[in-house]
Amino acid sequence: MSNVNENRRRRSKRSRGSTSAEKLVLEQLPWKQLQHSGGFTEVATEEQLEMIHNASMQILEEVGIDVLNDEARRIMIDAGARLDSKSGTKVFFDRGLIMECIATVPKEFTLHARNPAHSIKIGDSFINFGSVGSAPNTNSLDGGRRPGNQEDYQNFLRLTQHFNIIHFCAGYPVEPVDIHPSVRHLHCLADCVRFMDKPFHAYSLGKQRNVDALEIARIGRGISHTQLEQETSLFTVINSSSPLRLDDPMLQGIIEMSSLNQAVVLTPFTLAGAMAPVTIAGALAQQNAEALAGIAFTQMLRAGAPAVYGGFTSNVDMKSGSPAFGTPEYLRAAQISGQLARKYQLPFRSSNVNAANSMDAQSGYESTMALWGAISGGSNFIMHGAGWMEGGLSASFEKFVMDVDLLQMMAVYLEGVEVTEESLAVAVAAVKDVGPGGHFFGTQHTMDRYKNAFYAPLISDWRNFESWEEAGSPDALQKANHVYKQALEEYQQPQLDSAIDEELEEFVQRRVAEGGVATDF
Amino acid sequence: MSNVNENRRRRSKRSRGSTSAEKLVLEQLPWKQLQHSGGFTEVATEEQLEMIHNASMQILEEVGIDVLNDEARRIMIDAGARLDSKSGTKVFFDRGLIMECIATVPKEFTLHARNPAHSIKIGDSFINFGSVGSAPNTNSLDGGRRPGNQEDYQNFLRLTQHFNIIHFCAGYPVEPVDIHPSVRHLHCLADCVRFMDKPFHAYSLGKQRNVDALEIARIGRGISHTQLEQETSLFTVINSSSPLRLDDPMLQGIIEMSSLNQAVVLTPFTLAGAMAPVTIAGALAQQNAEALAGIAFTQMLRAGAPAVYGGFTSNVDMKSGSPAFGTPEYLRAAQISGQLARKYQLPFRSSNVNAANSMDAQSGYESTMALWGAISGGSNFIMHGAGWMEGGLSASFEKFVMDVDLLQMMAVYLEGVEVTEESLAVAVAAVKDVGPGGHFFGTQHTMDRYKNAFYAPLISDWRNFESWEEAGSPDALQKANHVYKQALEEYQQPQLDSAIDEELEEFVQRRVAEGGVATDF
Repeated sequence: MSNVNENRRRRSKRSRGSTSAEKLVLEQLPWKQLQHSGGFTEVATEEQLEMIHNASMQILEEVGIDVLNDEARRIMIDAGARLDSKSGTKVFFDRGLIMECIATVPKEFTLHARNPAHSIKIGDSFINFGSVGSAPNTNSLDGGRRPGNQEDYQNFLRLTQHFNIIHFCAGYPVEPVDIHPSVRHLHCLADCVRFMDKPFHAYSLGKQRNVDALEIARIGRGISHTQLEQETSLFTVINSSSPLRLDDPMLQGIIEMSSLNQAVVLTPFTLAGAMAPVTIAGALAQQNAEALAGIAFTQMLRAGAPAVYGGFTSNVDMKSGSPAFGTPEYLRAAQISGQLARKYQLPFRSSNVNAANSMDAQSGYESTMALWGAISGGSNFIMHGAGWMEGGLSASFEKFVMDVDLLQMMAVYLEGVEVTEESLAVAVAAVKDVGPGGHFFGTQHTMDRYKNAFYAPLISDWRNFESWEEAGSPDALQKANHVYKQALEEYQQPQLDSAIDEELEEFVQRRVAEGGVATDF
Repeated sequence: MSNVNENRRRRSKRSRGSTSAEKLVLEQLPWKQLQHSGGFTEVATEEQLEMIHNASMQILEEVGIDVLNDEARRIMIDAGARLDSKSGTKVFFDRGLIMECIATVPKEFTLHARNPAHSIKIGDSFINFGSVGSAPNTNSLDGGRRPGNQEDYQNFLRLTQHFNIIHFCAGYPVEPVDIHPSVRHLHCLADCVRFMDKPFHAYSLGKQRNVDALEIARIGRGISHTQLEQETSLFTVINSSSPLRLDDPMLQGIIEMSSLNQAVVLTPFTLAGAMAPVTIAGALAQQNAEALAGIAFTQMLRAGAPAVYGGFTSNVDMKSGSPAFGTPEYLRAAQISGQLARKYQLPFRSSNVNAANSMDAQSGYESTMALWGAISGGSNFIMHGAGWMEGGLSASFEKFVMDVDLLQMMAVYLEGVEVTEESLAVAVAAVKDVGPGGHFFGTQHTMDRYKNAFYAPLISDWRNFESWEEAGSPDALQKANHVYKQALEEYQQPQLDSAIDEELEEFVQRRVAEGGVATDF
């Protein structure tokens, strides 16, 4: 083993006073389409799931959903929903209609990336991790907390591309407020094509943004409009305005995306005690009503269009009203959401979320609790997988790489343990060789396997206290600061065909010249 | 809700410059015998479990266990084991003998505390959390890292007693090296009786220490020797010296404890790649062999004596040889260990462990991973539940209270989610009242439930960034420093009958005068 040489190297570097600039070896796991092997935690009984289902159907039949877009209401009514004549906007859905509609959602679909090797399968037993999305602020150890800007935005794209464990970009990691909102989506999405070759997200903030996003995704992949419609190449997250409201821009997004066979991730923002009932069971019933209504609508637009069931139910701190994440209630809600999604045979989206303000122990345990919920809940699509802090109010560069470490651990966990007659026979032979009182460090069995036997972390520091102290007592935050900067240095921009690059540039320039989109809503 | 008043109060305190001395309200969950509700993660198939079982039986039959105590070997041979004539110390066990012996271990037993309300059930679906045990050093934010001493030792006992979520003391939380080793156990165990009324542990470091510990446990409970033998009142952890060795003091401990119907927790220290094969499956086979041999021995001494299957398999960092904890490999090993324990119908011990040097994000995620393993693995008895750091080399006061927070979250998690027709009907009624676009903050449904709806954490800080920054940006470590000190202030020494106190004092004085125990091994 190389520990002696490595320690020597490390020490000699330190003695030259170059600790902080010391080059780390950032080994990472290869890109892989990860899969669950079952073993999901079934919290609710079949009977209890049915109760939640029935409560949600009762909400859809008797309370209804506020649908704030004329075209959407018309389509729903044509499909068999009933308009509430009093409000003129509320729509009631019978359970038969809902169940008939969601039956056509594909159990699994492919979200195509411009690099076919990075296309991902969503649904069934597949599991995919995304970057953080939609944070208004950036946070980093040396830069502090600041409003999102284009430079930080692009650096997050670089990290998303660089780390194999991140399968997709989950929206703008930070909102670059230094780009005018009318043209922001054009520059940002062109960056998604240029800085990455992985799948990405379009915000549903009015039809034109979706239209532009679809064109950029199409140009990026170098395909025809027909092929785009055959191959899902873009996704959007639709948050219902809980309780029970689908607002106009979101509905425009569903119409545009589903009609063209693109993916819609329907995620109600059901914080128990605030926008949903104060009980987890009640909040889940409301989540289920909102998610299924939105997903049913995707199928009214185009039967077979890909859609994902989003579970985001958490609780608020009842003293302050602050949202809480990674709590035991959140974990249970994620597990039951997974059960509901499986009941309906829908792909399931969850998240890696926490409410900590700094990358301290809280950020570590809340994130791990959230991932526990996502993994044991059988999630197929994990938003905010890396970098989310403060309940989504900031994206942290250090947290991004800490989460990369956590997600890689999840990947190793998902692989399970190799237990075969052969592997055990070889191990027993090693035990025989070593015998009582010996050790396994130098055995052939160990030498043959030690390099790849166990996950080697990016962030975790396993040195003994004395060596660690001698190195300046770096905590995980400081280590992560070092790691993310080096990852940015090591980042390589993926190749892009020059014809595509030109077409993209031409499109963006033309649309910018046209003024982008209206920003008056 | 009281957020406005509370914020005002907080701010006015701060403006008087008293932030650090600010009194926190440390609400905690009531003492409770916690229970699993099933839903364990079954990683290995039945067939794979059988393979591990067979490999471990092969180890016991063909490699054998080094048994470094004459009396123990004699008892084993009398029971049907075979002595290796070459070594004179190695003993082979046939699988029939092992299975016959372990069949008499109780599936569940009670570990009696001197306060009957704090007695705990171990086995079946029950789950209990212990303090940290056996750390040579203490760590705290203001005191730094220091060798364990009596004052720190006693303060950890106070915290163990104070927090309801801690069910037992798992050995000396720190080793008080300022007490001479010959009499250390006398002072320390008398402190366990005086500072706490919860169950505690005796180290098996030679027969006389166990004899003294049993007498202190008996005096503490004010019971006869006969009743002590009827009611398990003390436990010991036996670490086999992996690979495949039971050393003399440990064997003396098993003999003393099991003969008198006290609890033995048999935990092989099988670090894959160091003291066990480099594959997790191989390490588990060795763990299983060592654990079952030791447990079988308890039953040779006294059929029906309580024993616990300890799973501690983890991996080492193959670069440095450092032990790693809370890794994905550790998590899987814990889950499979739980499957093995259930296969044999034995109570199962796991741990809350991490390898971090400071209470940073790493300490948070590694601990949560370890607890994930313990909970999803169906553990009945969780050692080092609160305060363990650095792979066991230090006990941290701040980590203790952070872990109290985590363990309380586990308790809430274990309670599951209330899903009933009634609770859902009430929630749906609340949804009807609020309707689309409203909020649930002020509804009767919320007002009736908000106080106890969700777990209120001790450490997690859910304030928004601005409020948190205004308060001085305290991280979890700083908050925990505040919390543990206040908990020590709030600690109340449990009542002890004066006759018992006198008898205890008399016993300790006499044994100290006799010179305690020999310390020459």
